[in-house]
Amino acid sequence: MKIGIIGTGLIGASIGLRLKSHGEEKIIVAGFDSNKDNLNLAFKIGAISKKMKSAKELILNSNLIIIATPILDIKNIFIEIKRIDSSNKINDLIITDTLSTKEKVIDWAIEILPSNVVFIGGHPMAGSTEVGPNYSDGNMFEGAKWVLTPIKNVPSAAIESVLSLIEAMGAESMFMDAKEHDSYVAAVSHMPLFLQYALFILVRNSNAWSELSMLASSGFKSATRLTGTNPSLAFDINETNQENIVHWIGRYVDVLNQLKELLQNNSSREDFFRLIGSTNLDYLKFDEGAIGREHWGEPLTDVPDFNVFDLLMGGMLTEKLSRLDMNNKK
Amino acid sequence: MKIGIIGTGLIGASIGLRLKSHGEEKIIVAGFDSNKDNLNLAFKIGAISKKMKSAKELILNSNLIIIATPILDIKNIFIEIKRIDSSNKINDLIITDTLSTKEKVIDWAIEILPSNVVFIGGHPMAGSTEVGPNYSDGNMFEGAKWVLTPIKNVPSAAIESVLSLIEAMGAESMFMDAKEHDSYVAAVSHMPLFLQYALFILVRNSNAWSELSMLASSGFKSATRLTGTNPSLAFDINETNQENIVHWIGRYVDVLNQLKELLQNNSSREDFFRLIGSTNLDYLKFDEGAIGREHWGEPLTDVPDFNVFDLLMGGMLTEKLSRLDMNNKK
Repeated sequence: MKIGIIGTGLIGASIGLRLKSHGEEKIIVAGFDSNKDNLNLAFKIGAISKKMKSAKELILNSNLIIIATPILDIKNIFIEIKRIDSSNKINDLIITDTLSTKEKVIDWAIEILPSNVVFIGGHPMAGSTEVGPNYSDGNMFEGAKWVLTPIKNVPSAAIESVLSLIEAMGAESMFMDAKEHDSYVAAVSHMPLFLQYALFILVRNSNAWSELSMLASSGFKSATRLTGTNPSLAFDINETNQENIVHWIGRYVDVLNQLKELLQNNSSREDFFRLIGSTNLDYLKFDEGAIGREHWGEPLTDVPDFNVFDLLMGGMLTEKLSRLDMNNKK
Repeated sequence: MKIGIIGTGLIGASIGLRLKSHGEEKIIVAGFDSNKDNLNLAFKIGAISKKMKSAKELILNSNLIIIATPILDIKNIFIEIKRIDSSNKINDLIITDTLSTKEKVIDWAIEILPSNVVFIGGHPMAGSTEVGPNYSDGNMFEGAKWVLTPIKNVPSAAIESVLSLIEAMGAESMFMDAKEHDSYVAAVSHMPLFLQYALFILVRNSNAWSELSMLASSGFKSATRLTGTNPSLAFDINETNQENIVHWIGRYVDVLNQLKELLQNNSSREDFFRLIGSTNLDYLKFDEGAIGREHWGEPLTDVPDFNVFDLLMGGMLTEKLSRLDMNNKK
């Protein structure tokens, strides 16, 4: 089996490292990157066994290609594959990718790729704000979800190949519609990124920045950490998932404005305390691994049994409200 | 020197541990906490040398009191001190605190405390979402800023005592007006907390939560990590710093809406890329310790020299825009 990686940055090199440590002996991993530094480094750290001089050379010598480039670059790679196929007929090539958005990528695949090339979109739900093979890690995908968004009529043998790849990565595959995928990752990944840009921009542009930056401790740093994301990635994400991101930002502003009302409403202190208390409990459950349909009881804001909730919060609510009375708040 | 700590939770116990490892031999550290588990645990781990049975016993046997309780509790402690002073005249007592908001605390101090008790408000800019002496750490304040908000006519000897305490903590003291402090921490600490509540509530309440929670990886977890904050603390923070928090949330929504416009505006791709690029660079500088007035050149959104900026971004902008052209975006 000859596996080719196009784009030997953080993700591509991490896949290569894992394949070489956990793959079968019969697998040969070759790579190409238009950034020669990335390509040389990936080779040096052992993420790939062969450096190819061009995408063409790699494509003509692989059974399975993994594209891990910047999102907007994949369209040109598809065009290149079409061009190669028109002169040297390509046989039995399976292509998958690791890019953060799927709908446009799949549109381009359908529009451009020759029919003898099978494309199965993929997206590992793991990563880092770091870039480049220097930060690659063969265990990066261990335990992570890896979304697959195959289009109709994909041969099952091709799906099996990609599933084997994901299994070798130590990841867990999930099939999903590309549109759904893009909306979901907008909510849990892309929107949070842009929310953090807005926070950092607001505070950084404040006249009091010199004082604010001195007072900013680990909380602020972690609350703006995603702005450390490669700007090129952030740009491509917006370019290919703009509608979903904008939709989720709109919904976010609605929730934030509701919360702001609740903060200001001195007659709804109990509701406010219940909301932050139950959010806190839900976050702790989530943080401990309660995901999917398991472990979840009632919806977050509907905590019907006062006593059970009160018990959970260790009587905190009662104590808190009585303290407020004692302090003679208006 | 007899130092008393009221509230031997995370912060109080961390101060005690540090005093006992870095303080002079002549210092005796005693503690009181209305939560007996916290008090016993603080004693067990060596954060305090003496457990006092009441706040009264501690107050009557200390030269310097550090209050590290929940914010809303301090008012009652001040009332207790006034009560004690009316029967057993208190002499030479200095009180400081570590609570997250300062203006209301100082109002209460001025309103309630007898004139022979000196109060100097304090706030160490370090912490954790964890609570209780179990997570205490004598090195927690190492290198952190520690804000002091003394009121007028505080004897300089009292200020010296509190400065010595901060020095023993390994922290760096900063004098600040209480009003300013509260506005600043609203921006870098309290607003980010409520922004994260809104994000977690939005995603948690979505009908797609079971899918969303499965796709949520380290990025979402870190973007909502502050909701792990003790809800009692979050409640008290809003109760004592509501106006500033609401003000900053309003400004945040304005910036976020501007960013949303920019995301959607396909004719301003260059501005968008410059903004996320310069924000990224500024975050990286900040993350590497560029705070205060040093190291900062031009304001964030005003990057006048295209070539210098372009060089900084490694030609990324030019490349990105040409890629967009190639992809024939509208």
